[in-house]
Amino acid sequence: MRIAVDVLGGDHAPDEILKGVAEALLTGEFAADELLLVGPRPIMEQQLGELGVESLPHLLHTEQVIEGHEKPVEGLRSKPEASIVLCVGAVREKKADGLIAFGNTGATVAAATMGLGMLPGIRRPGIAVVLHGRQGPFTLLDAGANPAPKPNHLFQYGLMGASFASDVLGIEQPRVALLNIGGEAGKGSPLLKEAYALLQEAPVQFNGNIEGNHLFFGEADVVVADGFAGNMVLKVVEGFAEYLTGRATEASRDAGEGLRNTIRQLFGAADYAEVGGASLLGVNGTVLIGHGRSKASAVLPALRAVRKDIEKGVNRHITERIAESQGNSASTSA
Amino acid sequence: MRIAVDVLGGDHAPDEILKGVAEALLTGEFAADELLLVGPRPIMEQQLGELGVESLPHLLHTEQVIEGHEKPVEGLRSKPEASIVLCVGAVREKKADGLIAFGNTGATVAAATMGLGMLPGIRRPGIAVVLHGRQGPFTLLDAGANPAPKPNHLFQYGLMGASFASDVLGIEQPRVALLNIGGEAGKGSPLLKEAYALLQEAPVQFNGNIEGNHLFFGEADVVVADGFAGNMVLKVVEGFAEYLTGRATEASRDAGEGLRNTIRQLFGAADYAEVGGASLLGVNGTVLIGHGRSKASAVLPALRAVRKDIEKGVNRHITERIAESQGNSASTSA
Repeated sequence: MRIAVDVLGGDHAPDEILKGVAEALLTGEFAADELLLVGPRPIMEQQLGELGVESLPHLLHTEQVIEGHEKPVEGLRSKPEASIVLCVGAVREKKADGLIAFGNTGATVAAATMGLGMLPGIRRPGIAVVLHGRQGPFTLLDAGANPAPKPNHLFQYGLMGASFASDVLGIEQPRVALLNIGGEAGKGSPLLKEAYALLQEAPVQFNGNIEGNHLFFGEADVVVADGFAGNMVLKVVEGFAEYLTGRATEASRDAGEGLRNTIRQLFGAADYAEVGGASLLGVNGTVLIGHGRSKASAVLPALRAVRKDIEKGVNRHITERIAESQGNSASTSA
Repeated sequence: MRIAVDVLGGDHAPDEILKGVAEALLTGEFAADELLLVGPRPIMEQQLGELGVESLPHLLHTEQVIEGHEKPVEGLRSKPEASIVLCVGAVREKKADGLIAFGNTGATVAAATMGLGMLPGIRRPGIAVVLHGRQGPFTLLDAGANPAPKPNHLFQYGLMGASFASDVLGIEQPRVALLNIGGEAGKGSPLLKEAYALLQEAPVQFNGNIEGNHLFFGEADVVVADGFAGNMVLKVVEGFAEYLTGRATEASRDAGEGLRNTIRQLFGAADYAEVGGASLLGVNGTVLIGHGRSKASAVLPALRAVRKDIEKGVNRHITERIAESQGNSASTSA
């Protein structure tokens, strides 16, 4: 197995990404042959050498990067050699089995969608993030790939999320719920009402709507959201956690430390920036999107996460489940 | 000044509402003549008597209530004597200057909108909640009155929110921002793009988009949101705070206490249930919506909040500001 790493994307690239890569190699968790680094060759060689890496991974040279503030489609058009484009190309050409990227999320989604295409039957990709609640981990998707989805996209997110939760979180019968502003059936926008009706017929255990205040209390293993709401929720939680940790630390060091421990459980790390990342589901390849603020400590978790997605056969199972649902039901015809 | 109190709405009605009313009277903060209680007369008389209230407030008898799970419009149709309807009627007939209600939020919004009408020039009501961030209090609106707004509604929320923040939070030049999933102009749905353009021309200090992760860091005094996103954000914050407090308390009593103090600052109370409530802006009357989970301790803060809205002339200033904006600009013609 080989994983492509976008060395140029992200607020702390390339230094922190390379530090993280060095850690992955020096701990022996990943062999040099298992990584393909995409970025400026001289910098990669020099920095990895300085970090004590003797056997270099595969290197693919580029100096172009789509910055965080650039518009994805314009960036892709003007920078054909952008690091994310070459990473996606490596997966498409089977030089890598998956990729991790910490840069412009929109550009990663667009590059992967255009460069890899969709899995058979899937209409739109969705970003799946893992959060931790009272009963353990759960998946929220879509966290922002598709901010204006159609009902059928949400239906497919339910199926994709269920596959993901089974494979990656080890939940045999994931309970799927729809993020909404009311608990009862018939609540919310026309989009959510239609998605509710489709999910009721879906070959998953659909538990109906879930409201934001119930999110962390273990009532669902898969929370289906439109990309606007999902992104909003994720960012609010992130910012609120950061705010509370800061305030609690001001109040007392113990309180701050206690809260940081809680958040470590929540995000699987002491800081949001240390989380491995989010899986881009639905594209015909394995793509892990890390947070732009990621530092070195996020790289190894991201590599582990993408390896797990590949080893567990997430994409194969999604494809099977979608095919089954299309065999069983007319609900995907929309 | 007299305030109507819906004694029957809410999860802990009527007992906790009456306990809170007794507190307001016994502390001398409100005189008997300043309150009009709407609910079952025998229960109100008996319980207030048992709580030591000698001089009873005005009482308006009813036994009908729209329960939390009822559909607002159906509830209003089938229960013409519902407590919320009589509260609104008292304000319309000038028997009260404002009201507080802890019951079905949708029913309160609908009853107030139909029973009081809108302030001149206002298209839709919005729920304004006050949250506390790093730089102090800020207002989020709409928190759920209008889940599918038009751009002009968001424009008006910007103006209403600025008036509210000036009057109630004492902020002279409130900085208004639009809740979105991207920071730059041109981000988000067509709704948000159009609202952005209108707010740029509005007679307020408009600072552009704000993302959820920046919400608590003091960058805006008024955060304009569509009711779906605003409600989602509020509920996620509420649930996340509850979850974190629980987890932190498990980790250590000190950590839990520290966090509870932080949240006390955030919501202006130790618990969300103790917050006074949210102001329903835009209707032709002063309406405070309390949380359905409110206990006795939420009643006095709610009474104080509605009194402040009235004394500060929030509705008069909103009307003036809207009139000015209509004189100045064609942007409200939509």
